[in-house]
Amino acid sequence: MPENSTRYELFYWPGIQGRGEFVRLLLEDRDADYVDVARLPEAEGGVPAIMRFLKGTEPGALPLAPPFLKAGDLVIAQTANILSFLAPRLGAVPASEAARLEANQIQLTIADFVDEIHDTHHPIAVGLYYDDQKPEAARRSQQFIENRLPKFLGFLERVLERNTAAQQAWLVGQDCSYVDLSAFQVMEGLGYAFPKALKKVGPTLPLLGALRDRVAQRPRLSAYLASPRRIPFNQHGLFRHYPELDSE
Amino acid sequence: MPENSTRYELFYWPGIQGRGEFVRLLLEDRDADYVDVARLPEAEGGVPAIMRFLKGTEPGALPLAPPFLKAGDLVIAQTANILSFLAPRLGAVPASEAARLEANQIQLTIADFVDEIHDTHHPIAVGLYYDDQKPEAARRSQQFIENRLPKFLGFLERVLERNTAAQQAWLVGQDCSYVDLSAFQVMEGLGYAFPKALKKVGPTLPLLGALRDRVAQRPRLSAYLASPRRIPFNQHGLFRHYPELDSE
Repeated sequence: MPENSTRYELFYWPGIQGRGEFVRLLLEDRDADYVDVARLPEAEGGVPAIMRFLKGTEPGALPLAPPFLKAGDLVIAQTANILSFLAPRLGAVPASEAARLEANQIQLTIADFVDEIHDTHHPIAVGLYYDDQKPEAARRSQQFIENRLPKFLGFLERVLERNTAAQQAWLVGQDCSYVDLSAFQVMEGLGYAFPKALKKVGPTLPLLGALRDRVAQRPRLSAYLASPRRIPFNQHGLFRHYPELDSE
Repeated sequence: MPENSTRYELFYWPGIQGRGEFVRLLLEDRDADYVDVARLPEAEGGVPAIMRFLKGTEPGALPLAPPFLKAGDLVIAQTANILSFLAPRLGAVPASEAARLEANQIQLTIADFVDEIHDTHHPIAVGLYYDDQKPEAARRSQQFIENRLPKFLGFLERVLERNTAAQQAWLVGQDCSYVDLSAFQVMEGLGYAFPKALKKVGPTLPLLGALRDRVAQRPRLSAYLASPRRIPFNQHGLFRHYPELDSE
């Protein structure tokens, strides 16, 4: 597969940012040639294209769920797996094994955090509506804001503190890597879903806040964020704003 | 780092199998030279050795939580990250990129499943006792048994069905890989935690059941399982048997 001429095909539910957005941010920031298949008309793709892979009628690895990426003959599912595949090809992670392992480690920690963020509004079952689990969501969100939000964001801040001491301004290595884009996305999502909670914890996260701002100002990324390709946050995705779940 | 002479140091909470067990199974099955640091006396390791890494006073990448592995100068956290690092060194995954990507994809899907298994008994907060979230746990477990258990196990069965059609008896490639060991561990854990639910879904999973049995009969693994190094399942780990949460 000639790496520089691959057109990547991203498969993710249209209409939400969701976990697919972590992949989109990398593809957009690195100006990669890609197509967002499920957002095409059905004649060219659409949701039926996703379903064919989930039903196992397409060759390649079987995905349980989107996002997944098609790169030549490869079918690659699981967000962190997609990112660790793409990053070296797009120059979005340092070359050393130690750096790649640390990048994957931080990305998987962000993935754990994202799962917990999702479960604030769906603590009982992903198959039930929020309205069917509101008391449990209120209880889980309170615990999340008190304990989990500061724990995970504090971890990212501590990584940045150690790196700053070593004259590094990013989470891994000397330049913006895919992990920084993911950290940006989590901060943006939390600012939408839990603005009060994030405002309270913000002063304890000066390096993470500065990193978010630097990512937002990257030329390609800011152009993407202002484009119609960036789906707005909404009440169907990972990050949802239910005012009754947010508190300081 | 001379790969064949490395003594791996595993750091995980003593007293539970937890997520560390996925790493132990691989190290044991491949007869790797390793030490389970936190199970040593404090003079040689113990829990204080874990805490030094979590506090950031040791060099290398900063882990948020165990398990993590020290291999020479590398500090590697996150279960799937540790496994994808170790597997090529221990001959526990095929060499091709496609196979390694699929192995990591399946391992990450198992990790998602494990998170959901954990949350059946802790749906509100990991920092609260089970007794403080029993009604929510009952509700989440019912949904888990009806929907999520058959979905995840059915996915593994479907992968095996596709492989069987291609004359492969394992989840990835022609031989037992680390992913098969992880699938075994999930089946064993579910048999402890949810025996009624697993018994009901079992007949729909003939290939996965046969794979579990084949893994259990591997000589090094069966010797490990019968040894005092295998911590019994108990009510402090990922897989917990609360009879009131189990049903057919």
